[in-house]
Amino acid sequence: MTGSTHYEALTPETLADRLVGIEAIAARVGADAGTWRVMEVGDGNLNLVFIVGGPAGTVIVKQALPYVRLVGDSWPLPLKRAFFEYQVLTREAARDPGSVPEVYHFDEAQALIVMEFLAPHVILRKKLIAGETVAGLAETLGNFCARTAFRGSDLAMATAEKKADTAMFQGNVELMAITENLVFTDPYFDAERNHHTEGLDPVVATLRADVEMKAQVQHMLMAFTANTETLCHGDLHSGSAMCTDVETKVIDPEFGFYGPMGFDFGMLISNYVMAYFSQPGHRGAEDLAAYQDWILGVIEDTVAAFEAEFTQLWNTERTGILYPKALFEDQGQSSETALAGVLRHIWQDAVGIGGIEMHRRVLSLAHNADFEQIEDVTVRAPLEARNLMMGRELILRRGEIADARALTDLARKYNEEAFL
Amino acid sequence: MTGSTHYEALTPETLADRLVGIEAIAARVGADAGTWRVMEVGDGNLNLVFIVGGPAGTVIVKQALPYVRLVGDSWPLPLKRAFFEYQVLTREAARDPGSVPEVYHFDEAQALIVMEFLAPHVILRKKLIAGETVAGLAETLGNFCARTAFRGSDLAMATAEKKADTAMFQGNVELMAITENLVFTDPYFDAERNHHTEGLDPVVATLRADVEMKAQVQHMLMAFTANTETLCHGDLHSGSAMCTDVETKVIDPEFGFYGPMGFDFGMLISNYVMAYFSQPGHRGAEDLAAYQDWILGVIEDTVAAFEAEFTQLWNTERTGILYPKALFEDQGQSSETALAGVLRHIWQDAVGIGGIEMHRRVLSLAHNADFEQIEDVTVRAPLEARNLMMGRELILRRGEIADARALTDLARKYNEEAFL
Repeated sequence: MTGSTHYEALTPETLADRLVGIEAIAARVGADAGTWRVMEVGDGNLNLVFIVGGPAGTVIVKQALPYVRLVGDSWPLPLKRAFFEYQVLTREAARDPGSVPEVYHFDEAQALIVMEFLAPHVILRKKLIAGETVAGLAETLGNFCARTAFRGSDLAMATAEKKADTAMFQGNVELMAITENLVFTDPYFDAERNHHTEGLDPVVATLRADVEMKAQVQHMLMAFTANTETLCHGDLHSGSAMCTDVETKVIDPEFGFYGPMGFDFGMLISNYVMAYFSQPGHRGAEDLAAYQDWILGVIEDTVAAFEAEFTQLWNTERTGILYPKALFEDQGQSSETALAGVLRHIWQDAVGIGGIEMHRRVLSLAHNADFEQIEDVTVRAPLEARNLMMGRELILRRGEIADARALTDLARKYNEEAFL
Repeated sequence: MTGSTHYEALTPETLADRLVGIEAIAARVGADAGTWRVMEVGDGNLNLVFIVGGPAGTVIVKQALPYVRLVGDSWPLPLKRAFFEYQVLTREAARDPGSVPEVYHFDEAQALIVMEFLAPHVILRKKLIAGETVAGLAETLGNFCARTAFRGSDLAMATAEKKADTAMFQGNVELMAITENLVFTDPYFDAERNHHTEGLDPVVATLRADVEMKAQVQHMLMAFTANTETLCHGDLHSGSAMCTDVETKVIDPEFGFYGPMGFDFGMLISNYVMAYFSQPGHRGAEDLAAYQDWILGVIEDTVAAFEAEFTQLWNTERTGILYPKALFEDQGQSSETALAGVLRHIWQDAVGIGGIEMHRRVLSLAHNADFEQIEDVTVRAPLEARNLMMGRELILRRGEIADARALTDLARKYNEEAFL
């Protein structure tokens, strides 16, 4: 099917016949398609994902569907998102080698990517719900955020190349629209696709009555849609990382877009905060506090890793048009003030985006399993309420929450409060 | 020559023969090219400009050169800037009807635009040097800035259309690079193309020693190069407006780019400030104070017109993805807080960009005639020093200078000071 221009969704039954000719698969799975074992395992919101195993090994085949899987064909979504996912994967691999699955083959017409099968990795969110730790998690993802943010920006890239790439990614408009709607807008009015846990109505009313907060959210939306600072992953939550106990990989960048350098970083951190708040629904007192402490430690260490790596890149790879050495080092001056300003700007955006993510994951269409798997709504609702109210404070006070410790302190404070 | 794909620069001698077949010219000038009078009048930095007159009337023929006219063919510049100029002119005409010369014909291969001849208009900067007033100036350009900023942004446009347009304008990379270099960077180090008035060295040293200020300038450069909020004119100084005593038109948008909503607005205001500071070099005490007052009044009225028009559009044309009514008015809430935040953001960017423009026009390649025409450097230098020092304060305190009056008060204060 390689090179065929007629898109057709794969099934476990048709996959072997259709992909047998692809050398990248044959070489890694086995040339005889009769020996292939195919399993559809997609549990995300958008795509088909197949594990294809055989005598020589195993690969992943990911194929976009022409609609949102979570909703069905009433919500069409263009296949070209696979093209953007492929483009982001190659850039992430270049900017942070080893951070993403290796891509073996891409077929644009079939919206299909064949890539490395990660085993025994599991989705990070599942590990956070299960109370499992991952060694090196903070460093890996803090470095990933710093390297992709820095190396994809005008701090490092030739600006003509960066502008050409920015132009191309403006085409990922439908995926950006999902974020613009589901993340930045739907939580704050009675949108059709919203749903939330019974009992949360008073908190929802508080958020929707807060005109200043909604204005701040929309200021952040303007930054999301217009501030093309770097190529973002676009969906970097704990469902987009796969981990063993000692290794972490980033997957699923089809929402890739040029946006604020703090976007991925903020979304990631806020998903840790949600994991933190949800813990009382998943484990008993004997190990609750220790595991919650571990999560907050991951946040602090992620921020520390990000800042250390960003600073390192600032000092060694600042070859773009921004903050040129001609204005600082070459005049015998330090650029530390400028770097501090950039880090403050990134952090402020990250905190604001994090607060918004904490709202949409409880109020909009796509909820987090962290909360969703707490079956008893009388347990779940108060935990979600803490999360919503802290999200509000992050949005409103994103200019004042100075550092990671201020953020984790805030989480500890909200973790003690009752809003229902 | 229409449709010819081989570019060739026009001359007054060849123009009639080469353009005789263009119906848009023939209809407005006369069908017999033998009757045409052709005069090259380009006094800008980049292009050829011809006035073509005949029995039926007069048109302007503007043609890009493949290099920077001010510098020569050692500095190549792509012809496609004429394409972007044409694209911006059509959008400005749609967003603020009557604000720009009517375009009669565009030839992409020849990088040539045939447009309305404005008479008896003269360049606004010349009027400001001559001490002449223009009725309605503030309202026309304040409205222009508000209408183009608002209607070219995600406040008004369908976001898919806006992103497609943003992608296209990323191609105007060489013109953006001129701004990135000459405006945001060169003034702050010993760049080859810099020159400044004798006697200014101590002030230049003060600026280059100010690491905090240079960091702020580079933060603004990041916004220039990445914050694609709206389609900007890109070069809206007093040399890009043509006026009679009662009418104002905007010309020369080849620097058009998607950037901060405050960009054009800030550049415009800062050129008025420079006109203000330069006045003691152009007239005697008998009418100096009155004319300086008039200029500062134009600034205040421009800001007032901008804010009034922007507010009107906010209330009547807010159809984009940003600040949707679903989040405010439809919930029985006012969006005034959000609007105030947007206006504050625009103003803050405008003030910062204005300060940078005030530096580059005295230190970088392209100086302002306002100062340059003051032949006595012992008169000119102290006036430029005031301008440079106020520019620094605008950059450093752009978050604190609350409104137009605070800015004009600052200008009055600096106008009394001696820095040399």
